[in-house]
Amino acid sequence: MTTRKEVAELAGVSEATVSRVLNGVGPMKESTRKRVLEAAERLGYHLNAVASSFARGRSGNLGVVMPHVPKVHLFSTYYFSELLSGIGGAVHERGYGLLLLFRNPAEVYDYVSLFRTLRVDGAIVLGASSLPSEMAGIREAAAEGLPCCVMDQHFADIRIGTVAADHVEGAYRAVKHLLGKGYRRIGFLNGSPQYSNSADRLTGYRKALAEAGIEPDDSLLYAGNYSWTSGNAAAEKIYADLDRLDALFVSNDRMAIGLMKGLRDRGCSLPEDLAIVAYDDSDAARFSEPPLTTVHVPFYDMGKLAAERVLDRILDAAEGEQEPICDVLEPRLVVRKSCGTTKEDSF
Amino acid sequence: MTTRKEVAELAGVSEATVSRVLNGVGPMKESTRKRVLEAAERLGYHLNAVASSFARGRSGNLGVVMPHVPKVHLFSTYYFSELLSGIGGAVHERGYGLLLLFRNPAEVYDYVSLFRTLRVDGAIVLGASSLPSEMAGIREAAAEGLPCCVMDQHFADIRIGTVAADHVEGAYRAVKHLLGKGYRRIGFLNGSPQYSNSADRLTGYRKALAEAGIEPDDSLLYAGNYSWTSGNAAAEKIYADLDRLDALFVSNDRMAIGLMKGLRDRGCSLPEDLAIVAYDDSDAARFSEPPLTTVHVPFYDMGKLAAERVLDRILDAAEGEQEPICDVLEPRLVVRKSCGTTKEDSF
Repeated sequence: MTTRKEVAELAGVSEATVSRVLNGVGPMKESTRKRVLEAAERLGYHLNAVASSFARGRSGNLGVVMPHVPKVHLFSTYYFSELLSGIGGAVHERGYGLLLLFRNPAEVYDYVSLFRTLRVDGAIVLGASSLPSEMAGIREAAAEGLPCCVMDQHFADIRIGTVAADHVEGAYRAVKHLLGKGYRRIGFLNGSPQYSNSADRLTGYRKALAEAGIEPDDSLLYAGNYSWTSGNAAAEKIYADLDRLDALFVSNDRMAIGLMKGLRDRGCSLPEDLAIVAYDDSDAARFSEPPLTTVHVPFYDMGKLAAERVLDRILDAAEGEQEPICDVLEPRLVVRKSCGTTKEDSF
Repeated sequence: MTTRKEVAELAGVSEATVSRVLNGVGPMKESTRKRVLEAAERLGYHLNAVASSFARGRSGNLGVVMPHVPKVHLFSTYYFSELLSGIGGAVHERGYGLLLLFRNPAEVYDYVSLFRTLRVDGAIVLGASSLPSEMAGIREAAAEGLPCCVMDQHFADIRIGTVAADHVEGAYRAVKHLLGKGYRRIGFLNGSPQYSNSADRLTGYRKALAEAGIEPDDSLLYAGNYSWTSGNAAAEKIYADLDRLDALFVSNDRMAIGLMKGLRDRGCSLPEDLAIVAYDDSDAARFSEPPLTTVHVPFYDMGKLAAERVLDRILDAAEGEQEPICDVLEPRLVVRKSCGTTKEDSF
């Protein structure tokens, strides 16, 4: 590999001059500049991006920090893959690199070092929860005012950028649709409580019931963790409760599909025995039997917007304290057959 | 943020000494070393990873270069998401970062600069094809002997590392299964010809027919591009040919699902009117109607293995020329209902 020294010798200048020319730093005689560029060209010397980013104080990379869960193919889940596709689209447009980093969910992640060591110029946190270990790292990043955004999760006590969907509204529309079809005894299979968007769904569910004058019945609340397996496992309890349930709202498609398999295995006809509205509008929602009525969340757009917002912060780099990024996108209901209708429509 | 200068002042040494201590470069008096470390600790000075990787000549990142296709959510396709999950698993285990980079499919990508500028220490190329522009960049990387691996694509005239599945064998097993069920007039809907694994599938298809003593009939070859839309569009021609077709082998699940939709829209019953075997065994294969008999490809394992192989090359960094990485994994058939059987089995 050609060294800076060889370029300096061929051009008849010092190594420092080679660096200054190639990094475009400081004033320089045009004849010297040309001589250095020609020598670099002739020797095939590539400007060292690391040295160069060191000089500029930037890496050219946007970090995406996501949980590592052994045996779960996270990129293959609709949620993460769509968010990443959106982030990738924005990063490509701006000529940035996307540095994926994995954190162990139980450990405190050191976001601040990630920035201080110039590995990334900004970061997006995927799959964050309110577990104390996760919040500790995020709290520190927020305190430092780093260009940072947490995806689809908000915290009551941390002022940090977020791009999210309005899951109170999404859940509200799902349950309102079931109410509109005449169902009154509506249960709810929710995901893990450490995510703010699980709590938001519960709020939306309760709001729709309250508006319809229905007393909430906590014995119709079921607990899963957003996995197919947890939905499938919930089938036992829900099957036993079928005589007091008309319909069920489920916090994501994956659990709903696991649940429907469990119910069919117990001899149920769907949607006749139980009307279901799910959440996400993943690819699988269209292919499932029956196809799922579900809340469409614009994950791709959310990822793209989050990346654009963080890159804006990096590239504009305005002085002084800025308000945290805060964008909330609207979900919408997509009606298919699982709620007991054949009309394909959305509102 | 604390600077190197402040650490130097507190420790009473030069800035160069601070760098040498923190990077562990060169001999150093123990008392000086301790003074610098204490000053850095007291001031919360973080060693600059960029400066440090510059000193070591390594970035700590594995590059993954993938095509950017506007409006296609690549991370959401089963193929890319599983490969990336596997790569991510290996990278996490070794404490490396995964730098995702996007190339424009029509342009020559400069892999060599990626290495020379220390942005990555090794690279995996996803979605490579035999288009001349793609091959130009890969040929250059191969000539330089960089720690590099092309995923699931091989080239006749380039000696470069590959990790792939045996698609000749996969296609052969698919068609042999159809022959074993008594079908004789077997068509083939293939994907884009610029991928070596499309050519491999054609070879496997022809091999199985030849073994059964069946004369190949090129009028039963149909062309798609691995998208749902192209499968759906092929339905018109295939529907018109139904009187001379018993069964069809399709190069991926996505096209098969698009095709089945197109055939059902024209009033076909499946699998009664046409037996189908597809390829990939994506999530959608289980959810489709009828569920797909399909060739399972271990994409996750392929991604993991490719990353391990490249990281081995980086970290061992043996001197002298090495043989290119070359691993070929076995696909297997998963039998569901689309080929006209109800038995769920695999061989």
